[in-house]
Amino acid sequence: MTDKTSNQMWGGRFAAGPDAIMEAINASIGFDKRMAEQDIAGSRAHAAMLAATGIVKSSDAEAMREGLLTVLSEIEGGTFEFSTALEDIHMNVEARLKEIVGPAAGRLHTGRSRNDQVATDFRLWVRDQLDAAEKGLEALMQALLGQAEAGADWVMPGFTHLQTAQPVTWGHHMMAYVEMFGRDLSRVRDARKRMNESPLGAAALAGTSFPIDRHMTAEALGFDRPMANSLDAVSARDFALEFLSVASISAMHLSRFAEELVIWSSAQFRFVTLSDRFSTGSSIMPQKKNPDAAELIRAKIGRIFGANVALMMVMKGLPLAYSKDMQEDKEQVFDAADNWMLALAAMEGMVRDMTANRPSLEAAAASGFSTATDLADWLVRELDLPFRDAHHVTGALVAMAEGKDCDLPDLTLADMQSVHAGITQAVFDVLGVHNSVSSRTSYGGTAPVQVRAQVARWKEVLG
Amino acid sequence: MTDKTSNQMWGGRFAAGPDAIMEAINASIGFDKRMAEQDIAGSRAHAAMLAATGIVKSSDAEAMREGLLTVLSEIEGGTFEFSTALEDIHMNVEARLKEIVGPAAGRLHTGRSRNDQVATDFRLWVRDQLDAAEKGLEALMQALLGQAEAGADWVMPGFTHLQTAQPVTWGHHMMAYVEMFGRDLSRVRDARKRMNESPLGAAALAGTSFPIDRHMTAEALGFDRPMANSLDAVSARDFALEFLSVASISAMHLSRFAEELVIWSSAQFRFVTLSDRFSTGSSIMPQKKNPDAAELIRAKIGRIFGANVALMMVMKGLPLAYSKDMQEDKEQVFDAADNWMLALAAMEGMVRDMTANRPSLEAAAASGFSTATDLADWLVRELDLPFRDAHHVTGALVAMAEGKDCDLPDLTLADMQSVHAGITQAVFDVLGVHNSVSSRTSYGGTAPVQVRAQVARWKEVLG
Amino acid sequence: MTDKTSNQMWGGRFAAGPDAIMEAINASIGFDKRMAEQDIAGSRAHAAMLAATGIVKSSDAEAMREGLLTVLSEIEGGTFEFSTALEDIHMNVEARLKEIVGPAAGRLHTGRSRNDQVATDFRLWVRDQLDAAEKGLEALMQALLGQAEAGADWVMPGFTHLQTAQPVTWGHHMMAYVEMFGRDLSRVRDARKRMNESPLGAAALAGTSFPIDRHMTAEALGFDRPMANSLDAVSARDFALEFLSVASISAMHLSRFAEELVIWSSAQFRFVTLSDRFSTGSSIMPQKKNPDAAELIRAKIGRIFGANVALMMVMKGLPLAYSKDMQEDKEQVFDAADNWMLALAAMEGMVRDMTANRPSLEAAAASGFSTATDLADWLVRELDLPFRDAHHVTGALVAMAEGKDCDLPDLTLADMQSVHAGITQAVFDVLGVHNSVSSRTSYGGTAPVQVRAQVARWKEVLG
Amino acid sequence: MTDKTSNQMWGGRFAAGPDAIMEAINASIGFDKRMAEQDIAGSRAHAAMLAATGIVKSSDAEAMREGLLTVLSEIEGGTFEFSTALEDIHMNVEARLKEIVGPAAGRLHTGRSRNDQVATDFRLWVRDQLDAAEKGLEALMQALLGQAEAGADWVMPGFTHLQTAQPVTWGHHMMAYVEMFGRDLSRVRDARKRMNESPLGAAALAGTSFPIDRHMTAEALGFDRPMANSLDAVSARDFALEFLSVASISAMHLSRFAEELVIWSSAQFRFVTLSDRFSTGSSIMPQKKNPDAAELIRAKIGRIFGANVALMMVMKGLPLAYSKDMQEDKEQVFDAADNWMLALAAMEGMVRDMTANRPSLEAAAASGFSTATDLADWLVRELDLPFRDAHHVTGALVAMAEGKDCDLPDLTLADMQSVHAGITQAVFDVLGVHNSVSSRTSYGGTAPVQVRAQVARWKEVLG
Repeated sequence: MTDKTSNQMWGGRFAAGPDAIMEAINASIGFDKRMAEQDIAGSRAHAAMLAATGIVKSSDAEAMREGLLTVLSEIEGGTFEFSTALEDIHMNVEARLKEIVGPAAGRLHTGRSRNDQVATDFRLWVRDQLDAAEKGLEALMQALLGQAEAGADWVMPGFTHLQTAQPVTWGHHMMAYVEMFGRDLSRVRDARKRMNESPLGAAALAGTSFPIDRHMTAEALGFDRPMANSLDAVSARDFALEFLSVASISAMHLSRFAEELVIWSSAQFRFVTLSDRFSTGSSIMPQKKNPDAAELIRAKIGRIFGANVALMMVMKGLPLAYSKDMQEDKEQVFDAADNWMLALAAMEGMVRDMTANRPSLEAAAASGFSTATDLADWLVRELDLPFRDAHHVTGALVAMAEGKDCDLPDLTLADMQSVHAGITQAVFDVLGVHNSVSSRTSYGGTAPVQVRAQVARWKEVLG
Repeated sequence: MTDKTSNQMWGGRFAAGPDAIMEAINASIGFDKRMAEQDIAGSRAHAAMLAATGIVKSSDAEAMREGLLTVLSEIEGGTFEFSTALEDIHMNVEARLKEIVGPAAGRLHTGRSRNDQVATDFRLWVRDQLDAAEKGLEALMQALLGQAEAGADWVMPGFTHLQTAQPVTWGHHMMAYVEMFGRDLSRVRDARKRMNESPLGAAALAGTSFPIDRHMTAEALGFDRPMANSLDAVSARDFALEFLSVASISAMHLSRFAEELVIWSSAQFRFVTLSDRFSTGSSIMPQKKNPDAAELIRAKIGRIFGANVALMMVMKGLPLAYSKDMQEDKEQVFDAADNWMLALAAMEGMVRDMTANRPSLEAAAASGFSTATDLADWLVRELDLPFRDAHHVTGALVAMAEGKDCDLPDLTLADMQSVHAGITQAVFDVLGVHNSVSSRTSYGGTAPVQVRAQVARWKEVLG
Repeated sequence: MTDKTSNQMWGGRFAAGPDAIMEAINASIGFDKRMAEQDIAGSRAHAAMLAATGIVKSSDAEAMREGLLTVLSEIEGGTFEFSTALEDIHMNVEARLKEIVGPAAGRLHTGRSRNDQVATDFRLWVRDQLDAAEKGLEALMQALLGQAEAGADWVMPGFTHLQTAQPVTWGHHMMAYVEMFGRDLSRVRDARKRMNESPLGAAALAGTSFPIDRHMTAEALGFDRPMANSLDAVSARDFALEFLSVASISAMHLSRFAEELVIWSSAQFRFVTLSDRFSTGSSIMPQKKNPDAAELIRAKIGRIFGANVALMMVMKGLPLAYSKDMQEDKEQVFDAADNWMLALAAMEGMVRDMTANRPSLEAAAASGFSTATDLADWLVRELDLPFRDAHHVTGALVAMAEGKDCDLPDLTLADMQSVHAGITQAVFDVLGVHNSVSSRTSYGGTAPVQVRAQVARWKEVLG
Repeated sequence: MTDKTSNQMWGGRFAAGPDAIMEAINASIGFDKRMAEQDIAGSRAHAAMLAATGIVKSSDAEAMREGLLTVLSEIEGGTFEFSTALEDIHMNVEARLKEIVGPAAGRLHTGRSRNDQVATDFRLWVRDQLDAAEKGLEALMQALLGQAEAGADWVMPGFTHLQTAQPVTWGHHMMAYVEMFGRDLSRVRDARKRMNESPLGAAALAGTSFPIDRHMTAEALGFDRPMANSLDAVSARDFALEFLSVASISAMHLSRFAEELVIWSSAQFRFVTLSDRFSTGSSIMPQKKNPDAAELIRAKIGRIFGANVALMMVMKGLPLAYSKDMQEDKEQVFDAADNWMLALAAMEGMVRDMTANRPSLEAAAASGFSTATDLADWLVRELDLPFRDAHHVTGALVAMAEGKDCDLPDLTLADMQSVHAGITQAVFDVLGVHNSVSSRTSYGGTAPVQVRAQVARWKEVLG
């Protein structure tokens, strides 16, 4: 719809007076219909429990449970007619259920209210997203493991301040992100475990005098247990904020990798070639390949963390128990979840498709006297020079190489000995970039042997 | 659409491979179609300029301009078929234009690119919203002026720390918000003036070698001037961030007033009665009236400021000129604008409809020895006591009143003189809450005469 | 220092040219000296390992370890002279160590760099704060348990939309916060477990060729294991962001409770009386008691979550490995940690000191026909009325009570039966607020028996 | 102070009981002493007005005014002893004033309160910062103008997506930032104008019954007028939020330029060389130059916008008039202001010092067929080809050049004509990068003549 049309529509509604404005600000069916499946699952579990505890007749409960399946199939089939006048998904489903099963439908609301119902729906929805995030993160980690294994010994520059510092391996760089996304995964799992409690049966806010069995509904819906305080059950939104925090930190990791891919794709770096599928081109400049997907992933942190800010601000200073402010929780979480999943999938695809440009990586790694610290370490280790002296000698040799417009391994032994007589032929073993990376075998170091060990470990962890 | 359906859809697209993911993350037509009217206005101005400068034939330009009107009427009429494959609103319009006017449509893109085109569309859209915000703020201020004028001398408690501090007038309290929204209005106008420059003709990023007339298109679109640097023209998004900042500050003001309305509507305060139209009730508790609209307005700051955070984060550290990250600007601004306008309209409606409960207000104002400072001031002014002594005397009198379970004006003159012999009958003139507020005639003070003067001033300002 | 003085100082430095500006923006010793204890612990562990692995002589290592203890005692004793020219805590400590132990101090930096050193220090510091937060949360929960146990059966209004909905118990309301802070505690523990890995030995970014034993230093510092990727070890800041997220969510919970305390302290509510120690008064209005501590706690979410935003924004899009941007991490975390601890302690103190005003709470709970839902539930349960009919009957009875200006329990049985003949004397058992809360015995409900069960459970959990 | 010491101190205070915690959370003298100069200026203006209106004796007023100067000189001289027990700067100054001038000092507080006093101080402080920001922005713009003038015709790549798009000039790129900082400057001036109103005389919240002259104090303090509503005067913090918003947007612009400088300083780009003064090096790698200042500037957006979030969150939902929450406003604004000023100064210094590497810039501009669009435009303009055909021809020629491993200007005319017979020798006039940029003479385009015109315009504007 164009903006003008939209404005007219709004204008029209507002001209119709306060009622129209109230409906516009109040109704949630426009977005909470995304929780239809969860809403119906919750109601079916509740109905079964009402029968099991004798609160409603088994035949009534069975009719409701069947009727709810009918409603679900109508919604999934696209034939359900949502009504804004009915405000939200709960009322829409309930109204249709009454049409299908008659007045018995009215018994479904025994011992619960919309407050615990929406809390249950929303928890189920968020839990599904945590499960989806787990899958998305694992798939991305597998893609990174593939790159790491292939390039465990490819040499590239390790940067600090975007300046070449020391050579590292491609595999090592990939595995750094496996560690980051691995911690994201661990946060996802912790969040899921913590939030997997059932609000159902908390009723409006105080519990109920009906002899309901909250453990039964909790179990039916896959929750670990019912929440232990009914006021908390309808008021809590920390599970949603934790979801947004976990997603934001993960989006931060994605933004760092995306930034690297954008820089690495530049004509000046040429470290990687992204596939056509994750780039856009230009009909007039056939060589041009814009890393659009990487840029969009880099941007997603804004949207996801923006949602975190939004909900944190909504919840600030809200008294117990339910306030209408909380209705603002869903759109933020929906949008953040959609974009996180999308960014994970796009990053996975890009990683699987991308090609490292080994010659560029190696040339860049070798430039800039990147093995100067290897030389200094050798002087300390082999000649037992104090660090200060080792640095002095190294600086002199770098200056000599710079003067000769060559790199350190290009100096002769005589050159070397003219600066420090104790240097032997063995020094050249640490000067090449391959020697450099191979030597860094400390646990977690960049040596190919270490990289392969970590790849193996993660393969086992991820199964 | 239910979440399951949605997930299936996503799953389906993703199963279809990277291309589907890329389309999902890349296409903007789903939201940028809201700028159709602006896009077509920009293109029509560009076409007219191309003819006037002789770059294209007048007949071609005229055909394009007519064809664009046809496209617009199709979009407004709802018969236009948007295509995701065509990515964005610009390509959708252009493709349809070609069907209507033939190959001549291809000349429309002379001397411009999508980069300056989208920048132009978005500026026009934001400008429209600034105009709408101006109207919304003025209407809300008028509603407040109505309340202020009616209740210029109604007495209520002035709070600090939500504790009664001194009596104020209802009109004075309303006028405090007129001042706040008045500054919001002033920020809106400053923002509009600053952003009202045309990016059109900046082309991709460097300007063009065609002899275009950017001043002409700027004028045709109501811009004050063309932007003076083509790189800046396609890169700048500070106008959008300023819009979001202005909206956020305004939402902060709305949240403060909304909080007051929620508290004032409680059974414990009963300061105001909101109209049924802006409340929700309960079939079972007929006396219950939930201030849903106020709560939702209070919450909107989260969403609006969340958008501000999102876009600020997107723009952080982006090199010039255009990066695809910037595509994330629109949804944030659209959502923030929609919700700001909605909150302004809902607040205006609530203010117009609400009824102050004068007896509750006055009773609350009179309790808690709220005129103790008036007594102290009288002692300073009339008896020339130093403040320290005046406070001591006042404290003693308050303690005496508390002991007698009465308020200050209920003490006798003899009571008073037992604490300080110099006190005269005149002191009672400052002790009643009406006396108190009437005495505060300093400029901007709470005295009804001051309130009425400010109402008159604002009426003149707003016209 | 006054601002003018400050400005002069700045002006003076800037007038001194770029070097002064660079020093001002670059030096971190002004804040990172807070990590002195952690820095020295890390260096001592490193020195011991260097000796154990034969990289340095045992005598040298021992001298360094002793020297570091001397440095620490100088810092703790306030006699250490910090130098801005030495930039940061690491260089300050190292320089002083050299003065104490001579050139051998130079061997301390073998196999590590400032990059892994600062990462280690910061992790240790954050870990200490997580431990402090655990204690602070537990103490607050104990204070809440005390209130809950004392008032397990005190009746108060349960609010939705700040409107009385149903009666609840004071203990139940307190226990809702125990649940919230209990989840905060669980997040603290998860975060601690996840971040408890040692970066030490990652060196600049690539690991080292010295045969260091990272497991040994990890164990000596109480870490569960060394980090498995050296690039990640020096680049990762998600542990700091998780700390800030956890703190922010906890601050959100604090803000909700603080808001309630501010509202409950108002003259209109009078639900609680805060102690003098957590209030401020007025010499002139002795009855006035401002809930300053509650207001400041309410505000802390801004500062703590602001730090979260700040660091998230800093980390957005940073390429690996170390960038100087990351130096901005510490001040944010320091400030957030200080304020979170302070807010927890202040809230604990307020909770311990505060007095519930039982008559006000009970009177408020009984007003507003708060047991109307109990009546409706009774009609459903005992007379088997469908909900719709039960609501109709209840509405009629509420209207009748309103007309008689009394509450529901004040109606006679005859009154009741005039609306529905089936009502019996037994209905009165559910109408009083005490009956109402006692009846809500569903798991997690507000009934005193449930509250006491939860108090007992939590006492066992907290030990 | 080390953390341990700090913890001990806190521990000590907390062990001392609630009073210590309350003092720790409540006192503001630790930071608000930065407003001493403003506080004293406000008090001096107030005293003069009290005399002029006859509220206090002239001799008393004169004594107070002199005494305040003494206090100021003590503070500036560093001899003033601040007391935490006196809570804030206002009480500290007042207490010392009493020591100096005796009981007459007590009259100073006539017709004002701490609420309007702190609002006045804070506004004056923020106004000073806006003035400082104006100077800082102008200096930075002058530095950019210097670079732009020197390099009006130096050619460099214009990027989109960090991919070379079209050649632009160095001067044009610099001028893009002049435009951005110019809008920041305009926002600073608008904010200053809007906030330059005096709260003084609003008293606690309701105004006063003393015949004060608020216009007189407003004028004495350089305010344009007194604020028109006393409740608003003590409650408003939108001026602080606007300051933070303006600073945040400016920090966003700084972050973009800083990112470019970091990328441009990489070994792969080598577009600029930063001066030693704004870089840090390595004793061991003499060629290494880390762009620390640029990285720190890039990071400052986090801190500045974090402060914006913090204060927005604090203000959300605060009822009128003063709440203690507002005490959290100052530290956020202080920190943001300090860091904004620092970032502006550091960026100015870097820009003045940096050297563009012209050969690298030109080589990069010429690579990647960057003039392909010039060719296409020529075909449209000179041969009247429709765009689609022009693109087709251009694509074919680019492919040919790619096949020959040369760039477009290296093709022969015969090569060209083999693809389209109508091409003439004149085409080569648009193919070189210098020709390309010179041709883009549309208003605001990258042509040197346009750049020089904009430099001249801005020089006149800035004076």
